[in-house]
Amino acid sequence: MSGRFVNEALVGIAGSRAKLATPALVIDLDAFERNIAKMADHVRRNGMSIRPHAKTHKCVEIAKLQIAAGAVGQCCAKLGEAEAMGAGGIESLIITSPVVTQQGIARAMALNAKVSDLMLTVDNPENATALAAAAKASGKPLKVLVDLDPGLHRTGIAPGEPVLALAKQIHADDNLVLRGLQCYAGHVMHIEEFAERREASLVAMKLLGETRDAFKAAGLPTDIISGGGTGSFDIDPEAHVLTELQGGSYAFMDKQYNDVKAPNGGAAPFETSLFVQMSVVSNNTAGLATTDAGFKAFSTDAEPPVLLSGAPEGAKYFFFGDEQGGIALPGGGKLPLGASLTAITPHCDPTVNLYDAYHVVRGDTLVAIWPIEARGKSA
Amino acid sequence: MSGRFVNEALVGIAGSRAKLATPALVIDLDAFERNIAKMADHVRRNGMSIRPHAKTHKCVEIAKLQIAAGAVGQCCAKLGEAEAMGAGGIESLIITSPVVTQQGIARAMALNAKVSDLMLTVDNPENATALAAAAKASGKPLKVLVDLDPGLHRTGIAPGEPVLALAKQIHADDNLVLRGLQCYAGHVMHIEEFAERREASLVAMKLLGETRDAFKAAGLPTDIISGGGTGSFDIDPEAHVLTELQGGSYAFMDKQYNDVKAPNGGAAPFETSLFVQMSVVSNNTAGLATTDAGFKAFSTDAEPPVLLSGAPEGAKYFFFGDEQGGIALPGGGKLPLGASLTAITPHCDPTVNLYDAYHVVRGDTLVAIWPIEARGKSA
Repeated sequence: MSGRFVNEALVGIAGSRAKLATPALVIDLDAFERNIAKMADHVRRNGMSIRPHAKTHKCVEIAKLQIAAGAVGQCCAKLGEAEAMGAGGIESLIITSPVVTQQGIARAMALNAKVSDLMLTVDNPENATALAAAAKASGKPLKVLVDLDPGLHRTGIAPGEPVLALAKQIHADDNLVLRGLQCYAGHVMHIEEFAERREASLVAMKLLGETRDAFKAAGLPTDIISGGGTGSFDIDPEAHVLTELQGGSYAFMDKQYNDVKAPNGGAAPFETSLFVQMSVVSNNTAGLATTDAGFKAFSTDAEPPVLLSGAPEGAKYFFFGDEQGGIALPGGGKLPLGASLTAITPHCDPTVNLYDAYHVVRGDTLVAIWPIEARGKSA
Repeated sequence: MSGRFVNEALVGIAGSRAKLATPALVIDLDAFERNIAKMADHVRRNGMSIRPHAKTHKCVEIAKLQIAAGAVGQCCAKLGEAEAMGAGGIESLIITSPVVTQQGIARAMALNAKVSDLMLTVDNPENATALAAAAKASGKPLKVLVDLDPGLHRTGIAPGEPVLALAKQIHADDNLVLRGLQCYAGHVMHIEEFAERREASLVAMKLLGETRDAFKAAGLPTDIISGGGTGSFDIDPEAHVLTELQGGSYAFMDKQYNDVKAPNGGAAPFETSLFVQMSVVSNNTAGLATTDAGFKAFSTDAEPPVLLSGAPEGAKYFFFGDEQGGIALPGGGKLPLGASLTAITPHCDPTVNLYDAYHVVRGDTLVAIWPIEARGKSA
């Protein structure tokens, strides 16, 4: 093995895609670039910004490409992800989950000293007090957004008096800089029917709009109103509330998001650009092939992966344990040993989190390997 | 952040377990050591060996501890895992899945040149021919086991004429060294009722025994007969076929294996030694707490994790998306922000594959951090 990644010697060699050591996580660069451009264009036309979610890609190179296309920074789900983005030179970061432990707060202060535009999200007065004390001790004020609960009850504070009281507490504190609001309606994104998804999204946006208006009336800052996602990217703008969209999956797409219907039942608004490539390793039984991609190669929180190429019409992937996948072949068929198959991932975020690198291809050629620096940075 | 791991500064500090950045993968060293010793004693009493499966732990330090307790080497599911074990100084390795691609075969030859006792498993005459050619070109013969299909049809060749013909082909080739047989009845391991599991295991062992006898009658080597697992560790010995057991999960245990019943419905034969520690990050809703451990912190191919400590009786974990877990609290209860909870993993192998390191504790103190060198090495 030469270099850091097993497939490194194949970069730039024509036709090298078919020779990748598998399972391999593959980005189709043409489709990926079109997705980035389409989202950039969409938010520009709607007078908003995009702050893509690094929890999807976990990769500094992708963050840089998104920012080069106009993104205002990155969202990070966890502190470790933000540390990885900061180390990679990304300066404007929102950590979208609360940071509450003593060690976590100390790490957040260290990161705040390093990057110019770190923002934490806060949903609890007690946590605001702890962050303020730490920011004071660190000598640099900390920027925060108040996280509003859209009714999912995962994170966020209740609308009305609770959210206003928290915002006032933060705004009154010299060690905290209130920047605005975050609201993420995670329960809405995968509603498959457009009309139903639109209705649910706009309920959340209405709540957020009312909260923003109450902030304004109270003289509280509302410079950043951050939220939404790939499932609501074409719904949220009509509410005129968000200043920035938090989508992540739009860059890759997956089986789950491909099933989310566009208006009038049209095609998915973004192209699938992320795949897992696998190889047949055993084929002794008629109608069955065994591949090298199982529970450790695809996330298992959604439906199984969808075969895209390398297998005959009607072939279906099934999970065949930790290490292997089964391909059920119609009509007792057979695939040759070493045959290469490509599948659409069930759910891109947790699938990406299984891999150390992307294999970036143009057509049939591996053109780059991008490390996934924040892989596994869940803490 | 000092050092390679976020919790490194806590090693050796009394009471440090409660301060870990979470989610964190934790090994209870006392329980772990008892499991290793119990299995070592079990195989010794039965005149067998244990060759633990590194696909479970993926960690050189654990491989070394198992070998120090008498294990004859390690099994590896994939070539990348074997490369990581080889780089860590483990010399006797069986790769339990076929290696069939051109790049894979080249890597296997490089590894064979480096470690003294690499064994590949082969289930296909075409693959045997390719391996022989590569071994010849490499100048060092390659040791192989023939993989027998116990009826699961995942990998392995059919019993009877097919397995014998393949073994004869290998034995006749100067570039391959036939060492014996592998047979892994993966479909048997999690049958919950002991009597039913025993019956199914012994069916596979009977097939394997007949194949071994046919090998002997044909003058084929049977020095190594490798197979079985944690679910059949106390069944396989009575068949007197295996020379070595391939268990992996016994060192850790998990929800799945805790549900597999011992003879007479007794307690699980090994202790749970592996846990995920998580922290409450949001608690604004009565009867609900949100933790920092979701789809990226636990494998999702089995039932949800089981709460062990940190939550009141009757509390239940549920998956709350990629990044978070929900704790449903009985009676509208509340957990404090930052509260630490511990859960038994649903399925140890794919959960381990999400983490870069084990946090090794004795009681309440972090005593070591063990890197998981083969994490993500699925290719």
